[in-house]
Amino acid sequence: MVKPIKIALLGLGNVGAGVWRILQQNGAAIAGRAGGPLEIVGIAVRDVNKTRLVDVPAALLTTDPMPLIADPDIPIVVETIGCPGGDTGPAGRFIIEALKRGKHVVTANKEALAKHGAAFFRAAAEGGGSLYYEGAVAGGIPIVKAFKESLAANQVQTIMGIINGTTNYMLTRMDKEGLEFADVLAQAQKLGYAEADPTSDVEGHDAAYKLALLASIAFEAEINIDDVYREGITRITAEDLQSARELGFAVKLLAIAKQDATGIEARVHPTLIPLSHPLAAVGDVFNAVFVQGDAVGDLMFYGRGAGMMPTGSAVVADCIDAALNIRRGVGAPRNGRPPERKAIKPIEEVTARFYLNFKVIDRPGVLAAIASILGQNNVSIESVIQKGRRQDPVGLVIVTHSVLERDIRRALAAISELSMVRAIANVMRVEGENS
Amino acid sequence: MVKPIKIALLGLGNVGAGVWRILQQNGAAIAGRAGGPLEIVGIAVRDVNKTRLVDVPAALLTTDPMPLIADPDIPIVVETIGCPGGDTGPAGRFIIEALKRGKHVVTANKEALAKHGAAFFRAAAEGGGSLYYEGAVAGGIPIVKAFKESLAANQVQTIMGIINGTTNYMLTRMDKEGLEFADVLAQAQKLGYAEADPTSDVEGHDAAYKLALLASIAFEAEINIDDVYREGITRITAEDLQSARELGFAVKLLAIAKQDATGIEARVHPTLIPLSHPLAAVGDVFNAVFVQGDAVGDLMFYGRGAGMMPTGSAVVADCIDAALNIRRGVGAPRNGRPPERKAIKPIEEVTARFYLNFKVIDRPGVLAAIASILGQNNVSIESVIQKGRRQDPVGLVIVTHSVLERDIRRALAAISELSMVRAIANVMRVEGENS
Repeated sequence: MVKPIKIALLGLGNVGAGVWRILQQNGAAIAGRAGGPLEIVGIAVRDVNKTRLVDVPAALLTTDPMPLIADPDIPIVVETIGCPGGDTGPAGRFIIEALKRGKHVVTANKEALAKHGAAFFRAAAEGGGSLYYEGAVAGGIPIVKAFKESLAANQVQTIMGIINGTTNYMLTRMDKEGLEFADVLAQAQKLGYAEADPTSDVEGHDAAYKLALLASIAFEAEINIDDVYREGITRITAEDLQSARELGFAVKLLAIAKQDATGIEARVHPTLIPLSHPLAAVGDVFNAVFVQGDAVGDLMFYGRGAGMMPTGSAVVADCIDAALNIRRGVGAPRNGRPPERKAIKPIEEVTARFYLNFKVIDRPGVLAAIASILGQNNVSIESVIQKGRRQDPVGLVIVTHSVLERDIRRALAAISELSMVRAIANVMRVEGENS
Repeated sequence: MVKPIKIALLGLGNVGAGVWRILQQNGAAIAGRAGGPLEIVGIAVRDVNKTRLVDVPAALLTTDPMPLIADPDIPIVVETIGCPGGDTGPAGRFIIEALKRGKHVVTANKEALAKHGAAFFRAAAEGGGSLYYEGAVAGGIPIVKAFKESLAANQVQTIMGIINGTTNYMLTRMDKEGLEFADVLAQAQKLGYAEADPTSDVEGHDAAYKLALLASIAFEAEINIDDVYREGITRITAEDLQSARELGFAVKLLAIAKQDATGIEARVHPTLIPLSHPLAAVGDVFNAVFVQGDAVGDLMFYGRGAGMMPTGSAVVADCIDAALNIRRGVGAPRNGRPPERKAIKPIEEVTARFYLNFKVIDRPGVLAAIASILGQNNVSIESVIQKGRRQDPVGLVIVTHSVLERDIRRALAAISELSMVRAIANVMRVEGENS
């Protein structure tokens, strides 16, 4: 029998437990695919007495990860500590120590990658380690491998992703049941889909981390979390979703990155997409990443973006890749090419179509006044609907053609001064061609 | 500068031209990703004087592939000959000759893989060659790598694919425009989406080839084209599509393979799937493969299943993988593990839900008579709609619960004997849970 390849598992939370369970459940098949068995020989945890999601032999547990990381007999280190209390420090340090020792390191830690990615690549280059992180974005969807390997013949032009399950669940419920944001948030919190402090999800921080990582891989560029323009979904109302649907659009929190001759843009915000677009049908907690490459055309990857077993599936797939590299005596094939720093466009220079939801006095001349200001600022109108009659205010919803952010902002500032305009209730970008 | 890795290109049709164009267009970026440039140093064609889709230097063209295949200085052989006139012989022979010589061989030839796959694996084992075939199924969609690598932690349970663009285009048009099969076929032929002899597409042969290949990879089993049960789309009417929609279903030509403790099933046939299923939104010539794995849950891959650039994208990605292996001095990581022969269930032992479209006399007792025969044969009814009143015949559409094929066949044979039943207009299977 072929000698097992030994794995040190750091952390035994949700993802760590998934890794353990998958190796128990599918061990024989995985051994066939990895050229021999994979064996977890030690698990570092903070508290060895804590109740776990899976039964593991007590003898495997330790509170000290360093002896596992330093053990020359253990070639694979799987980091599933995450960042308890928002601190990526410990996970980051262990990853660096393992890479410096030439280990094959598997992680699903998007925050650690976003914050310490450059240090990881340096440590890998220094010590000959290899880094694998399929699980860090979109859970079980193999999007990292897609960008690194399957799309390697392409210039990637567009990424549009639904990469936060919580907000997609909320928007799906708001749309299907006509509920408002606050009610759906309470529902999602009760179901465990949203955290007690939902900021990271509903304000788009989680999606921005993932987008920075995805865009860095796809564009081979250093894209930091601060490069990503960000708006959350808190201002979206059931009425917005209904108006969008009447106009032929679904509303999704999209993580968008584009690259062309003028530069790179990266942004997370609520977005109207045509109902005929494949992203429009992605409901509930599912994730999906839509990609356009110059050779391959349109692609979309759909699946579960989180959870013990889907993320565990990605982490174990990385372990199998690592094992095959170890058995062949090589490192990961595309390891540590340090990304270039490329210019990221400020949001003011980005163009998009816009959905504008005004609350106005129902009086002749309102539309003319608004249209006139839009026209003066190079904003042309694609469609208009008026919602309600003879009440105060009435809704006026406008979808524009493609326009520079700077121009729409100037136009909206001027429109907000009009006495006939009670409020600019919402402004959202529109993406995706009608098919 | 790093020395280029040399490629011999066999064939310069649609896919070959795509490979050439992509290497011209994205050569610098590809060199970065492959650890150095990829260079096509010879192109074998049947007629050096033929007009081509791309401009290539005449000096590269030759009518004799063997010197290219035998050249020890050329490590990568890309086969894009296909099977002109249905003959996979030449492509198969060249692939075997290259593999025997230890080359890295890239092909998108699904027919050659289906017919000579076993011989390819033997030749690779014998000569140390590596075989790559991402482009053979679903064009630009990286589904081969998904099954071989990304899903390696899973037991794959279900594959449901829209893997024939022609028939998906036709069903989309029939559904959207209420057209009949013959009219849409003529339209598709005019647009170049369907061939003059459309048999391979509309009777499901093309999809069956691809399914045999996909299921072989996913289930690590030898699955031959003859193992795949097959029905085409020629009997589908606009009325079927409308009835299906009223019942909450879309109709797609699905390639389905499942594996559980009772065995493997593989079948290609028109299928009703819930409108809420992600496959239902896949329109026109697009392909998609929906997968269920025991760890990852539901996944779907969507994109262009054919065409010069999408298939070229997959072939060039394989070349980049090959180049990285060559530079590291190793073969492909998961090469040539010969698939086991596993038992494939005969269609009679497969269970499915069914859509039954009867033409009956509009008379009391008809439904009772049909329902009674169904019940006697263990077929229970999920829903019924009657189409039309007071005409002869009227339509009676029934959707059943899950039933054994053998039982539904016996029931239908008995129902066809009823004098009140003018015809069994169509019978289609139903898949996918309502969500």
